[in-house]
Amino acid sequence: MRPSGRDLSEMRGVSIETGVTKHAEGSCLIKVGDTHVICTASLEPRVPPFIKGSGLGWVTAEYGMLPRSTGSRMRREASSGKQGGRTVEIQRLIGRSLRAGVDRVALGERQITVDCDVIQADGGTRCAAITGGWVALRLAVNKLMKAGDVISDPLLSPVAAVSCGIYAGQPVVDLDYAEDSEAGVDGNFILRGDGQIIEVQMSAEGATFSRDQMGQLMDLAQAGVSELVSAQKAAVA
Amino acid sequence: MRPSGRDLSEMRGVSIETGVTKHAEGSCLIKVGDTHVICTASLEPRVPPFIKGSGLGWVTAEYGMLPRSTGSRMRREASSGKQGGRTVEIQRLIGRSLRAGVDRVALGERQITVDCDVIQADGGTRCAAITGGWVALRLAVNKLMKAGDVISDPLLSPVAAVSCGIYAGQPVVDLDYAEDSEAGVDGNFILRGDGQIIEVQMSAEGATFSRDQMGQLMDLAQAGVSELVSAQKAAVA
Amino acid sequence: MRPSGRDLSEMRGVSIETGVTKHAEGSCLIKVGDTHVICTASLEPRVPPFIKGSGLGWVTAEYGMLPRSTGSRMRREASSGKQGGRTVEIQRLIGRSLRAGVDRVALGERQITVDCDVIQADGGTRCAAITGGWVALRLAVNKLMKAGDVISDPLLSPVAAVSCGIYAGQPVVDLDYAEDSEAGVDGNFILRGDGQIIEVQMSAEGATFSRDQMGQLMDLAQAGVSELVSAQKAAVA
Amino acid sequence: MRPSGRDLSEMRGVSIETGVTKHAEGSCLIKVGDTHVICTASLEPRVPPFIKGSGLGWVTAEYGMLPRSTGSRMRREASSGKQGGRTVEIQRLIGRSLRAGVDRVALGERQITVDCDVIQADGGTRCAAITGGWVALRLAVNKLMKAGDVISDPLLSPVAAVSCGIYAGQPVVDLDYAEDSEAGVDGNFILRGDGQIIEVQMSAEGATFSRDQMGQLMDLAQAGVSELVSAQKAAVA
Amino acid sequence: MRPSGRDLSEMRGVSIETGVTKHAEGSCLIKVGDTHVICTASLEPRVPPFIKGSGLGWVTAEYGMLPRSTGSRMRREASSGKQGGRTVEIQRLIGRSLRAGVDRVALGERQITVDCDVIQADGGTRCAAITGGWVALRLAVNKLMKAGDVISDPLLSPVAAVSCGIYAGQPVVDLDYAEDSEAGVDGNFILRGDGQIIEVQMSAEGATFSRDQMGQLMDLAQAGVSELVSAQKAAVA
Amino acid sequence: MRPSGRDLSEMRGVSIETGVTKHAEGSCLIKVGDTHVICTASLEPRVPPFIKGSGLGWVTAEYGMLPRSTGSRMRREASSGKQGGRTVEIQRLIGRSLRAGVDRVALGERQITVDCDVIQADGGTRCAAITGGWVALRLAVNKLMKAGDVISDPLLSPVAAVSCGIYAGQPVVDLDYAEDSEAGVDGNFILRGDGQIIEVQMSAEGATFSRDQMGQLMDLAQAGVSELVSAQKAAVA
Repeated sequence: MRPSGRDLSEMRGVSIETGVTKHAEGSCLIKVGDTHVICTASLEPRVPPFIKGSGLGWVTAEYGMLPRSTGSRMRREASSGKQGGRTVEIQRLIGRSLRAGVDRVALGERQITVDCDVIQADGGTRCAAITGGWVALRLAVNKLMKAGDVISDPLLSPVAAVSCGIYAGQPVVDLDYAEDSEAGVDGNFILRGDGQIIEVQMSAEGATFSRDQMGQLMDLAQAGVSELVSAQKAAVA
Repeated sequence: MRPSGRDLSEMRGVSIETGVTKHAEGSCLIKVGDTHVICTASLEPRVPPFIKGSGLGWVTAEYGMLPRSTGSRMRREASSGKQGGRTVEIQRLIGRSLRAGVDRVALGERQITVDCDVIQADGGTRCAAITGGWVALRLAVNKLMKAGDVISDPLLSPVAAVSCGIYAGQPVVDLDYAEDSEAGVDGNFILRGDGQIIEVQMSAEGATFSRDQMGQLMDLAQAGVSELVSAQKAAVA
Repeated sequence: MRPSGRDLSEMRGVSIETGVTKHAEGSCLIKVGDTHVICTASLEPRVPPFIKGSGLGWVTAEYGMLPRSTGSRMRREASSGKQGGRTVEIQRLIGRSLRAGVDRVALGERQITVDCDVIQADGGTRCAAITGGWVALRLAVNKLMKAGDVISDPLLSPVAAVSCGIYAGQPVVDLDYAEDSEAGVDGNFILRGDGQIIEVQMSAEGATFSRDQMGQLMDLAQAGVSELVSAQKAAVA
Repeated sequence: MRPSGRDLSEMRGVSIETGVTKHAEGSCLIKVGDTHVICTASLEPRVPPFIKGSGLGWVTAEYGMLPRSTGSRMRREASSGKQGGRTVEIQRLIGRSLRAGVDRVALGERQITVDCDVIQADGGTRCAAITGGWVALRLAVNKLMKAGDVISDPLLSPVAAVSCGIYAGQPVVDLDYAEDSEAGVDGNFILRGDGQIIEVQMSAEGATFSRDQMGQLMDLAQAGVSELVSAQKAAVA
Repeated sequence: MRPSGRDLSEMRGVSIETGVTKHAEGSCLIKVGDTHVICTASLEPRVPPFIKGSGLGWVTAEYGMLPRSTGSRMRREASSGKQGGRTVEIQRLIGRSLRAGVDRVALGERQITVDCDVIQADGGTRCAAITGGWVALRLAVNKLMKAGDVISDPLLSPVAAVSCGIYAGQPVVDLDYAEDSEAGVDGNFILRGDGQIIEVQMSAEGATFSRDQMGQLMDLAQAGVSELVSAQKAAVA
Repeated sequence: MRPSGRDLSEMRGVSIETGVTKHAEGSCLIKVGDTHVICTASLEPRVPPFIKGSGLGWVTAEYGMLPRSTGSRMRREASSGKQGGRTVEIQRLIGRSLRAGVDRVALGERQITVDCDVIQADGGTRCAAITGGWVALRLAVNKLMKAGDVISDPLLSPVAAVSCGIYAGQPVVDLDYAEDSEAGVDGNFILRGDGQIIEVQMSAEGATFSRDQMGQLMDLAQAGVSELVSAQKAAVA
């Protein structure tokens, strides 16, 4: 009944290839089905003004889509002169989510910027960006620790994300574009490897949902994220 | 234990004064404690290009804060040349939430723009904006119905919102600024008058939460929203 | 003969409510007929670069209109990406006018920013903004003096403004929107409480005027401003 | 007592050279002392949307300064990404002033854009721009009339402008930069050739003025403008 | 003597992988040494206004770099609010170069937009973008021809580009970043497959060059481009 | 056969008037036929951040066109909110070209900004800007040397530029607008007074050219530039 023929609780295939660019301190190409995102983690000397001198570190994120990552070509945000509302919302979410897995005291006063650029989109780009972004972050932090610049590990636990929604009346996990564009309810679940919740966003446009349905989506999300965390662990091993 | 001395499940006082501007088709000044928001609903002739000719209506929202609605003066967004990420995120949320309570076929091919401008901020401005925005929308739709421009009521049910969070380890409802700036977990719950859920956003910066805690916040939210819906109904009666 | 039935030299009713926001150092809501403006004065730590180290203070102003303060909804300047020419012109006028009533040596090296936000417009918004802006400024300076941060009073005299114009061939004071949109000649007069002139702007689009007419408008303005100054004095008493 | 040694009521030398660019329908280089402005009038096919179909014409203006027209180099507005507040204010004034001398019915549904670009600045650039702008406009309209595109002359009377101010306690006409930067009161007077007034702007920063002083400046302005009108008439003869 | 150990006339290894995104009408990932660029060609319904109704087609290009495609992270152009001068210059060059190989009558009134996004940069990104961009364009045109939308082939000849320069006093081909940043003279040569020249840009910062040196660089460029054209032909075969 | 009746190798008349503005350290008005450009050189206290403390000087350039310098009025870049791609490309070329004639050590840590503003355009504006820009630069440097601020002359040799192209199948020098808009191949040649080449840009839109043609254009350019250099030397003598 799903367009892809998947079971309700079946994730798409996930692959994470690390070291895809020679310049970044950490990088990967994550593929969740036909959604492909390049994630890089860049160590930067400057911290934002509001934490200067605090001894705390900072992790932030930026998100973009190549103009033809989508079915019809989108206008390039650099040429239209600003990042659209959706982009701004997504990159704030990625940054907030990754920070929830970081001990900023252990990181020390340095900034890591995670860039997530969608090469090909087929639904769930923000979730793939968070999952792949954590891998890039992990690799960059590994480099810091190896160099002795950071002593105790600032990454508390993996952070991964999956979308779940109500499609054709049924709760499904890891929606692709065909499902996403038709779903009555659509949610993004960002969890830690230990099952703790970092962020939940569930919304319905022109519809509503019940507490029972919330619970069903949460179940799907927790199972899905544990698959993603396994893939993350394998990638950084 | 709350800075304001309120009980964990105690909302702030709510007042909604309607008809606060002579120009708008619907308007109110909503006060939730010391958070004051002017909401206006403007009937506009044009619909967005993507629904032209579809026969469907559209409801959208914009959000702003007066520069000195906050403790220290913020830079005016009109002068800095763009709306910040937070503003963009909030006004998308307001629009999405209000649309979830609208039958767009019954509304017909017309647009209503809800403007929410914060006069004084003390936490929970986006929730007050949604709750007051629905009142302005209701009044504007009433005018349409009275004029016979719309036959069957396009507003399915009231839409209201409340914030809940974990403050000092305890679940609390309707956080004011003192609580909001210290809370480990912070959520916004947008519900319909009949208890159905429209949108849930729970997030933790530098922390996490459990499914049990999600449930406790949800309980507080449902009780809080039913108080807000009573205030909405009284205001538009 | 005036749309409102007022005499040629009759002002609209004026009310000034102070302390309308708990955050600002000074604030008021001024109502001149159906023109309603919220004015706040914010004490700010930084002075503009060109007076750093000079020992002189600075007073500046910003002006905005809520999108639905007008008969048909205006586009929000924050969303269109810049302040329009009219806004820029008005806020420069407000700042210049208020500074003409300030002893910048006595103020000392600090900045006060006066924000004037139009809630409801019915002609004469810039004049109401100046008149109300001075009240907010007065209250903020009172706070500085009470705290002992400023010794001798930097406010030399009240500053107030009124519009006068030629409507239907007759000189009238305090034009409302119905008159303003039809007037052949339109002027703004900013005066001090002692009758001295700070700024005069008279202009005619597609028409001209004589020196005699200038004198008649000036007479109306001086009488009108003295009413406004009484209202200012009552408000800050 | 004036830095230039001029009498209180003595204008600077004025020269107006027409036909300075081969492309524009009308053009001149006006020199008022060391203030040099190139003015061009361009006939344009499109009228602004708000008068489409009305049969009325439109005259508008734009103003700019070459980066090194001033004592120290100014940032180029094209490169800083927007026109500053002063530029916007000035070009609105030029357009408004020129329109006051135009019969828009006689002009017919066409637009003339007057560009005023300051090559060298020494005070009074907006006044020189208006005076020279009218010459360019006159030449462009002559061309329209010669071609038979316009039958009755849409230009009612010359429009010219001069600055007057209180310098070192004395009323003076046609301030140069040395005076302008020190003057306590500064005014711009835009008049028609027949002595009728189009616009008056008098302002004081950190000072005030009396009605008597207003009258003295007005006297100087009327005498000064009649000299400028003679120069305009000679230039277009 | 070259940092990479290559001979003066030795190109870097070139690989071109086609079909790298499922959405675009044509796409490839071109690798010239460590310079990696994703090129997509998007068929778009609209043509620019200036050729509407002419029956002619249009090919245009846009260029971007991922923020961490370079040694240190660059600011994202979408976030800084505009495309920098270098980006604008490069994308104009790519578009102009590709159009020189297109019969716009045969293409018919349609637009193809070629997007070139640098994933990893190591010198010569604009040349790789042109060479890869042509491959994407070829594939998109093949699709048009297969569908019968275009009858006679609008692509006259392959278009490819290589950089040549004077490094350490010697003429070298296909400069990598280490050479590029030190070269006294730097040129980009865009040629057709038949050896005809489309565009030549040679420039020296803080140095100069002779006509003899121009000839040597031209020799290197012609040999280099013929290697690139072979790679293009193999890729699209 | 050329629209102007000139021989294939015949330049337009050149005049260079120096000292055209009293403020700039160096200035000229260059006329190459009907192309008129005002060039000013401004000595500025600040150097760009990337050379602070290096002891090296910097020369940069900006370029603009008056809105009605062209046959039909162009939109003012200051009002459209950004410099177009063509402007950016040209001003980068001017700066790069002038720097190629400067000994930045001898100049010392100071910046000279050359502004080139086109008053009237008839083809070849960027070449006229470079040729005139060098004259302004020379005059500004003379002033520095006279004041003893610079000891050894930082200007190595004059820098001048000319356009050459293939018009109606024939190589021609110094194209005017009528030729430029029809030419199949169009090149800009920036040379030093001693015949050394600084920059060459040759491009063909919808056409190509051969190495023989490159040589013919180069011959024309070298002859043309030597005429320009004579005019430069006469102007600064």
